[in-house]
Amino acid sequence: MRMYDIIKKKRDGFELSTEEINFFIKNYMSNEIPDYQVSALLMAIYYNGMNNRETADLTFAMRDSGEMLHFEGLNGLRVDKHSTGGVGDKTSLIVAPIVASLGVKVAKMSGRGLGHTGGTIDKLESIKGFKTDIPLNQFIDIVNDIGICIIGQTKDLAPADKRLYALRDVTATVESIPLVVSSIMSKKLAANDDCVVLDVKTGSGAICKTLEDSTKLASIMVDIGKKAGKNMMAIITDMDRPLGRNVGNSLEVIEAVQTLKGAGPEDLTEVCLVLASAMLNLAGYGDTETCRKMAMEQITSGKAFETFCKMVERQGGDASCIRDTNNFEKAKYTYTVLAPKSGYITYMNTEDIGIASLLLGAGRNKKEDNIDYSAGLILNKKTYEKVEAGEAMVTLYTNKPEAIEQVEAKILNATIIEDEIKDERPLVFKTII
Amino acid sequence: MRMYDIIKKKRDGFELSTEEINFFIKNYMSNEIPDYQVSALLMAIYYNGMNNRETADLTFAMRDSGEMLHFEGLNGLRVDKHSTGGVGDKTSLIVAPIVASLGVKVAKMSGRGLGHTGGTIDKLESIKGFKTDIPLNQFIDIVNDIGICIIGQTKDLAPADKRLYALRDVTATVESIPLVVSSIMSKKLAANDDCVVLDVKTGSGAICKTLEDSTKLASIMVDIGKKAGKNMMAIITDMDRPLGRNVGNSLEVIEAVQTLKGAGPEDLTEVCLVLASAMLNLAGYGDTETCRKMAMEQITSGKAFETFCKMVERQGGDASCIRDTNNFEKAKYTYTVLAPKSGYITYMNTEDIGIASLLLGAGRNKKEDNIDYSAGLILNKKTYEKVEAGEAMVTLYTNKPEAIEQVEAKILNATIIEDEIKDERPLVFKTII
Repeated sequence: MRMYDIIKKKRDGFELSTEEINFFIKNYMSNEIPDYQVSALLMAIYYNGMNNRETADLTFAMRDSGEMLHFEGLNGLRVDKHSTGGVGDKTSLIVAPIVASLGVKVAKMSGRGLGHTGGTIDKLESIKGFKTDIPLNQFIDIVNDIGICIIGQTKDLAPADKRLYALRDVTATVESIPLVVSSIMSKKLAANDDCVVLDVKTGSGAICKTLEDSTKLASIMVDIGKKAGKNMMAIITDMDRPLGRNVGNSLEVIEAVQTLKGAGPEDLTEVCLVLASAMLNLAGYGDTETCRKMAMEQITSGKAFETFCKMVERQGGDASCIRDTNNFEKAKYTYTVLAPKSGYITYMNTEDIGIASLLLGAGRNKKEDNIDYSAGLILNKKTYEKVEAGEAMVTLYTNKPEAIEQVEAKILNATIIEDEIKDERPLVFKTII
Repeated sequence: MRMYDIIKKKRDGFELSTEEINFFIKNYMSNEIPDYQVSALLMAIYYNGMNNRETADLTFAMRDSGEMLHFEGLNGLRVDKHSTGGVGDKTSLIVAPIVASLGVKVAKMSGRGLGHTGGTIDKLESIKGFKTDIPLNQFIDIVNDIGICIIGQTKDLAPADKRLYALRDVTATVESIPLVVSSIMSKKLAANDDCVVLDVKTGSGAICKTLEDSTKLASIMVDIGKKAGKNMMAIITDMDRPLGRNVGNSLEVIEAVQTLKGAGPEDLTEVCLVLASAMLNLAGYGDTETCRKMAMEQITSGKAFETFCKMVERQGGDASCIRDTNNFEKAKYTYTVLAPKSGYITYMNTEDIGIASLLLGAGRNKKEDNIDYSAGLILNKKTYEKVEAGEAMVTLYTNKPEAIEQVEAKILNATIIEDEIKDERPLVFKTII
């Protein structure tokens, strides 16, 4: 078997066999196949795609490039939730404590910010002292003790994804459904949870801009998870508007805390309840209606918030910030973007809002860049809400005052205000089982 | 400017600017851009192509990656002929001495065998002692002295092509018109001849299998050559049948000698006269009819053959082989493939005939392989000729008797014999100026 023939076959639109896909991953990981052949194959996959069988084979080969996670003697099912990434998406910080407070085990590995979207790990690290690079044995201990722990991805899980992702990132081959699927699912399957709920985003702030693409992505991931013996569900949620009002690391933790205390924004609360009840449902806690009530009850009773505090403490974080969010360090500069006219906000380009937050300091341009945890923005008014001309629309938080002018222009440019709302997109589109 | 953005732009089907193409070649050659980004771009070019402006820019950037060839005080125009590669194509060995014997200067750099097609340099090296790695200053001296010299490509001419070709060869990105054009033309333009005649092959043994593709390839190359101030002409000739009867290195030299002596096969002689008269015409020797007569006269008078002998001697070769071709070393084994039935040969897959010759030892599988100069085959009968069942159809020459069975099967499989000839393809399709 030769890598050349595999590239040529995919280039010409043919299906790769299981053996060919295994050969590619195995020999890439043993450095027999050079990056330049792999990037040519990735570009051919970008153009010609992969069918579901090929995508599953690629996922399994990537999963098997490293160790799988095993928990000995854990009491209860391990359930994960994975989002395909969005702006203002802090649901992990909320749903994980909710379900963990009910006895579901959450041993979660999360990512850092990517492009215009934030990452759970960066958000958690905005809590002073919070450790996300906990060794595996300690991670397992914490989950055994308190039922929840969230860490960064370890190098040992699906290492092929790490190498492939780094290559895709510099060769313009990120936006390919089979490559996105195999990247996400190889890590999920290596993490080896019993149940996985996928939050597949759709709209201007998501990888998949259309419902059709998002549905396709969701269905393939659910199928592959099931093939690997996992209990799977995917929920397609809107990312044509940011989720909640806060964008930026500590700002999002603050909003998560408000939501865990029952005082979060409506859209964020709703998506969290949908996701939490899906996780509980998969874990056998009853039908989704029952599970939703249980989840709600964990918020009302304060148990979900207490579980979050316990996790923060156990992972070395300063829980005083969580108990009183005024203790978070503040950005030096705030600036208010005013509504340019009266009417209803009918559209806010979500990717642009994400980029605005990056420009204020909330993200990285290069991998080595430091994040300003206090930077970001709050949408005082958001999509489908009424504004008056001159009213505070968006508040910016930054330590880079020189960025403000550009960011204000970007936000105004990303926002459409009209006399009436014509179509309101649903918040939750559908569930794929 | 970032290579990432250049890849993405081409991936999405947009036109690259002159600056982007120059940036790519310049920084690839200075090792600022890694192979894995280049191979992703090459695959994107494979899919989305390049328009004529982009292809010209790429050609010029590759030409300018090294030195250009300059001859001081040369008396007469330098004229080159370049073939896109075929099976049994030994025209360079014939047309170069013809035109040189008339005072045109031929300072030719040729290639080695590639895939199923042979290379002029390998053929010349089948003449004992013939040197093709002559240093540039000596090369120029020989052309100044006797008006003709044929050497291998030097590393200094269009070095970007060498690197890109090596990468294309292992990433399944060879068969792309803009990449083929820029590869050929960057070297031709760096060689800096005054006039170039392109022999663009079409048919089952050529890079371009259809007349449409061959015409496209020829037109772009002619345009680019003109843009660079060269006197250009392209002639599209048939490669749906091997040219002449002999395939294999010394066998082809022997047939070239026969042709230079006026006793060559009809098709080969015809193509050589067409190409030689095109070269003379471009060099200002008169209209093609006049030039054809002049070329014919150089054969009849023996002057073309004498020029060839002079070149062989001056490049260190044993001219006794040329004066008496029985002096060439013979292959140990010969084997005759018989016609399986009576009728007319209506088709012989030319690529398969080329591969048959390789299998007998006439080519390389890997770059490091040694060539068996005596190996190859003679088509006693060829396309459009009548055969009787059991009559000698192809004679094989080899030192690898174990290859004979497979080669015989391949040849029989590549050959169609029918009761009558329906369509006879022309030998010369068209001229593009």
